[in-house]
Amino acid sequence: MLHILFFLPLILTSTHVIAQDFCVANLEGVQTPSGFACKMESEVAPDDFVFSGLGIEGNTSNIVEAAVTTAFVEQYPGVNGLGISAARLDLAPGGVVPMHTHPAATELLYVVHGRITAGFISSSNAVYLKRLRRGDIMVFPRGLLHFQINAGKRPALAIASFNSPIPGLQILESALFANDLPSALVEKTTFLDYAQVKKLKALLGGTG
Amino acid sequence: MLHILFFLPLILTSTHVIAQDFCVANLEGVQTPSGFACKMESEVAPDDFVFSGLGIEGNTSNIVEAAVTTAFVEQYPGVNGLGISAARLDLAPGGVVPMHTHPAATELLYVVHGRITAGFISSSNAVYLKRLRRGDIMVFPRGLLHFQINAGKRPALAIASFNSPIPGLQILESALFANDLPSALVEKTTFLDYAQVKKLKALLGGTG
Amino acid sequence: MLHILFFLPLILTSTHVIAQDFCVANLEGVQTPSGFACKMESEVAPDDFVFSGLGIEGNTSNIVEAAVTTAFVEQYPGVNGLGISAARLDLAPGGVVPMHTHPAATELLYVVHGRITAGFISSSNAVYLKRLRRGDIMVFPRGLLHFQINAGKRPALAIASFNSPIPGLQILESALFANDLPSALVEKTTFLDYAQVKKLKALLGGTG
Amino acid sequence: MLHILFFLPLILTSTHVIAQDFCVANLEGVQTPSGFACKMESEVAPDDFVFSGLGIEGNTSNIVEAAVTTAFVEQYPGVNGLGISAARLDLAPGGVVPMHTHPAATELLYVVHGRITAGFISSSNAVYLKRLRRGDIMVFPRGLLHFQINAGKRPALAIASFNSPIPGLQILESALFANDLPSALVEKTTFLDYAQVKKLKALLGGTG
Amino acid sequence: MLHILFFLPLILTSTHVIAQDFCVANLEGVQTPSGFACKMESEVAPDDFVFSGLGIEGNTSNIVEAAVTTAFVEQYPGVNGLGISAARLDLAPGGVVPMHTHPAATELLYVVHGRITAGFISSSNAVYLKRLRRGDIMVFPRGLLHFQINAGKRPALAIASFNSPIPGLQILESALFANDLPSALVEKTTFLDYAQVKKLKALLGGTG
Amino acid sequence: MLHILFFLPLILTSTHVIAQDFCVANLEGVQTPSGFACKMESEVAPDDFVFSGLGIEGNTSNIVEAAVTTAFVEQYPGVNGLGISAARLDLAPGGVVPMHTHPAATELLYVVHGRITAGFISSSNAVYLKRLRRGDIMVFPRGLLHFQINAGKRPALAIASFNSPIPGLQILESALFANDLPSALVEKTTFLDYAQVKKLKALLGGTG
Repeated sequence: MLHILFFLPLILTSTHVIAQDFCVANLEGVQTPSGFACKMESEVAPDDFVFSGLGIEGNTSNIVEAAVTTAFVEQYPGVNGLGISAARLDLAPGGVVPMHTHPAATELLYVVHGRITAGFISSSNAVYLKRLRRGDIMVFPRGLLHFQINAGKRPALAIASFNSPIPGLQILESALFANDLPSALVEKTTFLDYAQVKKLKALLGGTG
Repeated sequence: MLHILFFLPLILTSTHVIAQDFCVANLEGVQTPSGFACKMESEVAPDDFVFSGLGIEGNTSNIVEAAVTTAFVEQYPGVNGLGISAARLDLAPGGVVPMHTHPAATELLYVVHGRITAGFISSSNAVYLKRLRRGDIMVFPRGLLHFQINAGKRPALAIASFNSPIPGLQILESALFANDLPSALVEKTTFLDYAQVKKLKALLGGTG
Repeated sequence: MLHILFFLPLILTSTHVIAQDFCVANLEGVQTPSGFACKMESEVAPDDFVFSGLGIEGNTSNIVEAAVTTAFVEQYPGVNGLGISAARLDLAPGGVVPMHTHPAATELLYVVHGRITAGFISSSNAVYLKRLRRGDIMVFPRGLLHFQINAGKRPALAIASFNSPIPGLQILESALFANDLPSALVEKTTFLDYAQVKKLKALLGGTG
Repeated sequence: MLHILFFLPLILTSTHVIAQDFCVANLEGVQTPSGFACKMESEVAPDDFVFSGLGIEGNTSNIVEAAVTTAFVEQYPGVNGLGISAARLDLAPGGVVPMHTHPAATELLYVVHGRITAGFISSSNAVYLKRLRRGDIMVFPRGLLHFQINAGKRPALAIASFNSPIPGLQILESALFANDLPSALVEKTTFLDYAQVKKLKALLGGTG
Repeated sequence: MLHILFFLPLILTSTHVIAQDFCVANLEGVQTPSGFACKMESEVAPDDFVFSGLGIEGNTSNIVEAAVTTAFVEQYPGVNGLGISAARLDLAPGGVVPMHTHPAATELLYVVHGRITAGFISSSNAVYLKRLRRGDIMVFPRGLLHFQINAGKRPALAIASFNSPIPGLQILESALFANDLPSALVEKTTFLDYAQVKKLKALLGGTG
Repeated sequence: MLHILFFLPLILTSTHVIAQDFCVANLEGVQTPSGFACKMESEVAPDDFVFSGLGIEGNTSNIVEAAVTTAFVEQYPGVNGLGISAARLDLAPGGVVPMHTHPAATELLYVVHGRITAGFISSSNAVYLKRLRRGDIMVFPRGLLHFQINAGKRPALAIASFNSPIPGLQILESALFANDLPSALVEKTTFLDYAQVKKLKALLGGTG
C-alpha cells in the first residue's frame, strides 16, 4: 500500500507548480526576449501541443497564387520556448512565394506534393537554386533571401519548419513598397528607377 | 564600365574564402561540440542543401512495422551548424515507433497522410496523448519520452523536424535490452521482472 | 571629501534598480522560457545564494532505499538564470536511483562517501558503466538514460550538479507506470508483456 | 483595387500584436534572465532605437579624470534582447578608467580621438598591452580585468560596444573598498597590507 | 624564496597549453560552426587583439559614394569566438550604404561625424527612420533590411559594431542583380519589371 | 532470428561513426570556440567520463594554506562540449582561496566538511557574504569577484562545479602582481601605493 508512494520521498519537492519541460505561451501575459510567459502547468492540455491549422488548404486566389499559413507561437502557443515552429505553403500552378527572409530562423522545406523551384542567395551573392520534387527537403540558412515557385502544372504543397517559435518573415516587396518609406529613399537605396518604385508602391498599397 | 566594379571597393575584403552563412559539413574532417568542420565555400553546391532520401518509402517489413529514415547531419551535411534536421516516419497499419527520446532536440511532427496516435510524457509523469489526422502537427519537447502509433487501417506517413542537426535518438527498448548491460542491473534499475528482462534481451540481441 | 564621490560621475547611471549580475527568482512572479521574473536587487540578500537543504540526510526508508533532495530553482531561487543547480543523493546499502533522464541538463556526480555503481546509455546503445569511489566524479551527458546504485555495504552519499536551474527529471518507471497511459499503449510501445505492465502499474499507482 | 490586399491572405495571421524582430524594454515591467518585458509593438517608435546620450561629453572633473557614459538597457531600452550595447569613455590628459571587468560581455573599443594605452590580463596572467591611436579598435574578452589610460596630452574619446545589453561593470577598487566588506577580509583575500586597505576604504567611502 | 611559487600548487595544472579566455583564429586552420580553430596560446600576442584598419579612410570614389571597411574575423582574427566585430562606414556627401541585411548579427551604429539618415524595416513592414547626428547611436535588429545615407553636406563617418565575428552582409541589389539568377526568376519573385531587372543586371555585372 | 535485427532498418543510418551525445576531447586535436575536436566514438570508453583526481587531497603547504585541484577539460576531457566541470578546494585552518573570478562560468560550491566563509561582490559593489557549514551550497554568479576562507579550526573541503568545461580562473593578485605589467600602471589603475605594488610584485614573482 505504502509502496505506491515511494517516489514521493524520493523526489520530495512538489514539481507540479512550475513548468519544467515546456512553457506553453500565455499570449495574454508578458512577452520577453525569450518568449511569452508560461501557462501554469496545471492548465496545460494535450491540445496545446497540437495544431490543426496546417491541415487546411490556403486560399491561393490572389496575385501571387500562393498562400502561407503560419504555425508560429502566436497561432501555436505550445512551441513557446521550444525553438521550433512551422508553416504551410500552398502554391497554385504559377504560384510564387516572393523573395523573403526569416530574420531569426533557418528554414527546412519539405515538398508534400508538386514540383517547386526554390533558391536562396548567400552573402557572397552566390545563388543556390534547385528544382524540388515530392519528398525532397531543402534548407534555407538563417536570414538569407530565398523564394519558392511552383514549377509544375498542378498545385504544390510544402511544409516549412523553422528553428525558432518566432522566425519572423520579411517579404522583400512588402518591406520596400507596402509602407510609407519615401519613394526617393527607396530609389536611392535600391537603384530601382523612381517610376518602378512608384508603380510598385501603388500596387502594394504603399505611400510616400 | 567601371561601374560594375563599384561593390568591390565597397566591401573590400574577399569574402569568398570563408563560410559565412552556412557551414556544410566535411564529414571527413574534425567533429567538434558545435558540429563538423566546414567545406570550403568554393566547393559548396546547391545539392549540398537538398536531400532526396526522405522521398523514398521506408521498409516497414520488420517487427515494429515501422521505419525511420533520418536526414541528420551524417546523411545531410548541409544542415551542419544550422540548428535543424529532419526524418521520415513510415508506419504500416499497426506499426509503431517505440518509446524513445531525442536527447538534444525538440521534435515537430507533421502528418502527411494516415492517422497517428502520438504522445509524450513529462517530468511530472503527465501524459499528453492525441490522435492526429492528416495535416496535424504535434510538438515533442526536448528529451522527453514519446512514441507514435499508426491508428488507422492504412499506411501512415509523417515528417519530423528537429531543432538540431544531431538530435540523437535513444530508443528505450534498445537502450535497455540491445546491449551488454547486465540483466540484474536492468532489473534493479527498472523494476522489471528478471524473466521479462531476459526475454527482451533475447529478442533484441542483448547479452549479460 | 569630494573624492569619495568620484565614481558617481564616472558611472553616472543608477545601476541599483535593475538586476545585473543575477536574477534571483520571484517564484510568485511570471515564469518564462528563460526562467522566473527577478526579485528587485534591493530585496536580494546573501541568503538567496545559499541553500542548506542538501545538508540534511534524505529518508531512504522506501522501496528503492534511496532519496533525492533537489536544489533546483523551485527550492533554490538564487540559481534562476544562472545555468546551474544541484541535488543530493542518499543511497542506503542496496539503494538505487532508478533509470532516469534529465531532459534539459548534463549531470556531474561527486561521490562524498560510499561506493556507487553508475552508468549511462548512449544513443548508440553503448553502456558506460563504472564503479565509483569516494572522491570520484562522473558526467552524464544531457538527456541520456542513467542510474546509480549503492555498490557497497554502507550508506552512500553523492552530490549532483546540473548545468540548468531546471534540469527536469524523468524517472523511467514513473513515466511508464505511474500515470494513466493505457496499459495496451505501454505494451505496444515498449514490448513489455501486458502482465508486466499491469503489475508495475499496480505497484506504482498508475491506471489504465 | 483588390490587388493591394493580396498579402493579407498570403500571411493571414495578424503579426502586429506581438514583438517579432525586437523587444524594446518596458523598464516598468518584469525583468527576467533574458531581459525585460517587451513594449507592445504598436507603442514602439523610431526613437526607441536611437540614443543620443553618447554624444554628450562626460565630466572628467574627478579623481580619475575620466568619465564613462553607458548606453546599457537601462538607459537605452531598445537594445533589450538584442545582445548589444555601448558606452562612451572620456579621458582627460592623465585620465584613467581603472582596472575593471564586464562579467557578462566582451568589449570592443574604438578610439575616436586621442591616444589610449589599454590592456587586459588573461587567466594565465599574461598581459596584453597596447598603445592605441585614433581609429584603432581593441577587443577585451569577456570577464577579464582590463583598463584604459589616456596616453597623450589631449583629451581622448573612445566608444565601447558590448555583446550584451547588460554587460555589467565591476570596478576593482570599488568592489574592494567602496562597501562594507571587512578590511581584515580584504587583507586576507588580496594580500594587501591592512593599512593600504584602510587608506583606500577611507578614500572610496567604504566601511568595515 | 619558495613563496613566489605558491600559486603553482594552488592551481596545479598547466593552464598555458590551451586557450582559455579567447580563441584567436588560425585562418589556415579548420572552420567550424562556432568559428575557426584557435592559435596556440603561446603564439598569441597583443597585436592579435588590436586592428588598425578602421583608422584608414575608405575610398568613396564609386557609384554609391560610400565605402565599408570590415573588421570581421577574416580581417581581425582576434574576435574569433568572442561574439563581436566591427566595420567602418565612410559616406561622401550624397553617399549611401544601400539596402542590406546582416543575416547573423544585430548592428549598433555610432556616428563619429557628419549627419546620417538611417532606417530599418521590420517584419511587420514598419519603417524606423531617423536622422542621426554626431554622437548618436542606432541599433538595427538582426536580419532586418536597413540602410544609411549621408544626410549632410560633408563627409560622414560611422563605426558599426556587430554581435558576431561573422555577421554576414547581404546587399540587396548585389543579391538580386550581381549574379546569374535568371532575370525571369528575379522578375517573378520581386514584381520588378523585366526591363528594370535587365537594366540593373547590366549595371551590376549580373547575367541570366 | 531476424527479429534481433529489426532496429537496423528502423534506424538505417550507421550512427556509430560520429559522436552524437557527447564529444570527448582529443586534446591533441584542434581547439575551437566551442571546445576541442572529438575523439572517435569507437575510441570512447567509460573511463573518459570518470575522473578520480578530485579524490586526492590537495597540498596546502603553501602561503595561502589552500589548494585548488581542477577537473576542467584539460584534465577531464570527457566534459568537452557538455557545459560542466568541477574543482576541489582544500583549505587548511586559516587557509584562503584569494579573491578571484571565473570569466566564463557560474560556480556552485558544496561544503563537504569544515566551515567556510565565502563571499562575492556584485557590479553594484554589494557584498554577499555567508558562513557556510557542511552540506551548504552557495552560488557565485559568472564573472564576479569572490573568495573562500576556512572559518573553522579544522581542514575544510569543498567541491565546486561550473557550467563550462573551461570556466577560466583569474586570481586577482596573480593578475596584478605575478607578471610584467609595469608597477606604475598597476598603481595608476588600482590606486594602490607604489610601494605596495612593488612589495607584492616581489612576493608573487612579478617584474616591471
